Amino acid sequence: MKAIEIRAPYLIFLGRETQLTYAKTGSGLVQWRAELCKGQMNLEGGTVDLGLPQMTVAEAKAAGIQSLVIGTAAVGGEIPEEWLDALEEAVLAGLDIVAGVHTRLCDIERLAAASSKSGARLVDVRIPPARLPVGSGKKRTGKRLLMVGTDCAVGKKYTALQMEKDMKRLGWNADFRASGQTGIMIAGHGLPIDSVVSDFLVGAAELLSPDNSDDHWDVIEGQGGIFHPGYCAVSMGLLIGSQPDAFVVCHEAGRETFAGWEGLALPSIQDVIERTTLLGQQANSNIACVGVSVNTSGLPADEREAYLAELSSRIGLPCVDPLIDGTDSILAHMSAAEASRDLTGSKDQ
Amino acid sequence: MKAIEIRAPYLIFLGRETQLTYAKTGSGLVQWRAELCKGQMNLEGGTVDLGLPQMTVAEAKAAGIQSLVIGTAAVGGEIPEEWLDALEEAVLAGLDIVAGVHTRLCDIERLAAASSKSGARLVDVRIPPARLPVGSGKKRTGKRLLMVGTDCAVGKKYTALQMEKDMKRLGWNADFRASGQTGIMIAGHGLPIDSVVSDFLVGAAELLSPDNSDDHWDVIEGQGGIFHPGYCAVSMGLLIGSQPDAFVVCHEAGRETFAGWEGLALPSIQDVIERTTLLGQQANSNIACVGVSVNTSGLPADEREAYLAELSSRIGLPCVDPLIDGTDSILAHMSAAEASRDLTGSKDQ
Repeated sequence: MKAIEIRAPYLIFLGRETQLTYAKTGSGLVQWRAELCKGQMNLEGGTVDLGLPQMTVAEAKAAGIQSLVIGTAAVGGEIPEEWLDALEEAVLAGLDIVAGVHTRLCDIERLAAASSKSGARLVDVRIPPARLPVGSGKKRTGKRLLMVGTDCAVGKKYTALQMEKDMKRLGWNADFRASGQTGIMIAGHGLPIDSVVSDFLVGAAELLSPDNSDDHWDVIEGQGGIFHPGYCAVSMGLLIGSQPDAFVVCHEAGRETFAGWEGLALPSIQDVIERTTLLGQQANSNIACVGVSVNTSGLPADEREAYLAELSSRIGLPCVDPLIDGTDSILAHMSAAEASRDLTGSKDQ
Repeated sequence: MKAIEIRAPYLIFLGRETQLTYAKTGSGLVQWRAELCKGQMNLEGGTVDLGLPQMTVAEAKAAGIQSLVIGTAAVGGEIPEEWLDALEEAVLAGLDIVAGVHTRLCDIERLAAASSKSGARLVDVRIPPARLPVGSGKKRTGKRLLMVGTDCAVGKKYTALQMEKDMKRLGWNADFRASGQTGIMIAGHGLPIDSVVSDFLVGAAELLSPDNSDDHWDVIEGQGGIFHPGYCAVSMGLLIGSQPDAFVVCHEAGRETFAGWEGLALPSIQDVIERTTLLGQQANSNIACVGVSVNTSGLPADEREAYLAELSSRIGLPCVDPLIDGTDSILAHMSAAEASRDLTGSKDQ
């Protein structure tokens, strides 16, 4: 697969960060891929603790660590001068540097020079690989589940990760497919779909979930929203290239306008289901919505269950807050739907 | 407008080309913007004649020419070594070089050096400007007419140019807006929409047809096709960002599958009308199809009229081959539709 690839295990670099909220990439990595995170590195004054062993570059190297992953965002999304001694030392020791910041790693002279000396890679998860293909429209083998949203930042990535986790626990053959920078760092591979040149958007989405075995599910991180005033074309390209068999609509309870586009009303969940089904049929005639994922963190605790119950009865599908309820009810619905489709199939024989 | 801008008038550069068919950019420029084309330059052995005065760089400079436009495509879309003496001379004389080839002009050392000496620009019409905005979703003033297609290469650019020409002849206030490289060379400005990074696709499309006076029509060159297996997301972004009041569906008579995607059937014209209307309503609730433009060059001459008449009666809209019939019937329909909308409006008062 011609996607970005990150070598595990990781040393999570936290700089001088003192607040966990600015170390979301690092904490996300530990939350979803604890088995790949072998150490953390704070610089003098840094106090964020992800619960990993504190390591120097030499200790990380000795422990078999392959990549130093920048797990915090400095102000302005840049690489601050004060990080460079540590990063250069890591590169010279042969550790890849992995980052999703605004500065291109290869534009930082000391890191570029160290990289050509040691052969360690500078991996920018915001930069798509060169020579992506144009979309082919060809049907691929295996099954695909895509997250779509009423808006950006409604929990598409975390829903996908939770569904992958629940599928694996239940013995399903499944893999999370990352389409954004944080997702790529968590997955260790993927493609930053929204950074791809428009002509290759569908092609990149096709590359993200390649041919697979018949029982395999790709659980694809969504981007934007099909009604989004700025990013709808990204969502369209990802939908067509993913050719999903199933999709889950993600929403944040209480959000009524597009975040950052406050004059514009959000579509209803039902509108998103209908539009996604209509457009998705272009790439997969069997596409179906299988559930709704709601971030209910803004609701009073005692309203959560009633909210989800009302929504579920109105939409006619399982509705969950994935980080509280898990996604087993959606998976049960998928199994039942697939069984009935198989039964219909065998009746036709 | 933060788009690519080309300085007129032009010297059309034809290299050693001997066949008009490989000089499409040059002949398109003369066809649609004769008033801006003041001279042509063939190198030794070149025989293509666009009917313009043959000029040296010195003569072009003396005639007030501002840009040397590369009007032919060399094999492989590169800038051949044998062109460089002439191009360098032009840059040193202060002429901008304008090209839509694969090689980036600024990567050619001799041209880059000449450009920093003289201050003349190297204009790559395939490279979008930096720092494009994200789509805002804000309604703009003025009116917009977008070309859409059943496929790529069905005459969207030429239909738009013919409609602009007919509108101007009839006294309408109108401007062609180019969204692809050849269109940009003809218009002298525009944005290569399909080369824009996906996140900024809608924003670039918004930039292409900025606020204008109430009676003004932007006639926007389309890209791809809303059902296209590779380029549908480009078409979606252009549709949403253009927020068109009206659109024309372009088609090539006899084409049944996507060109280059031969296993995939083209949508019907009616399907394209319905899908474009549905999606376009997201950006402009008044969007309406106003006609169909058919390239009938593949039909026997005596079947052309019957084909268009049958189509027109089936679709219920004017259907023309714009390069044979012109587009007055579509413009008449637009006027009538607008008048009845105005009448409806005044009845409501």
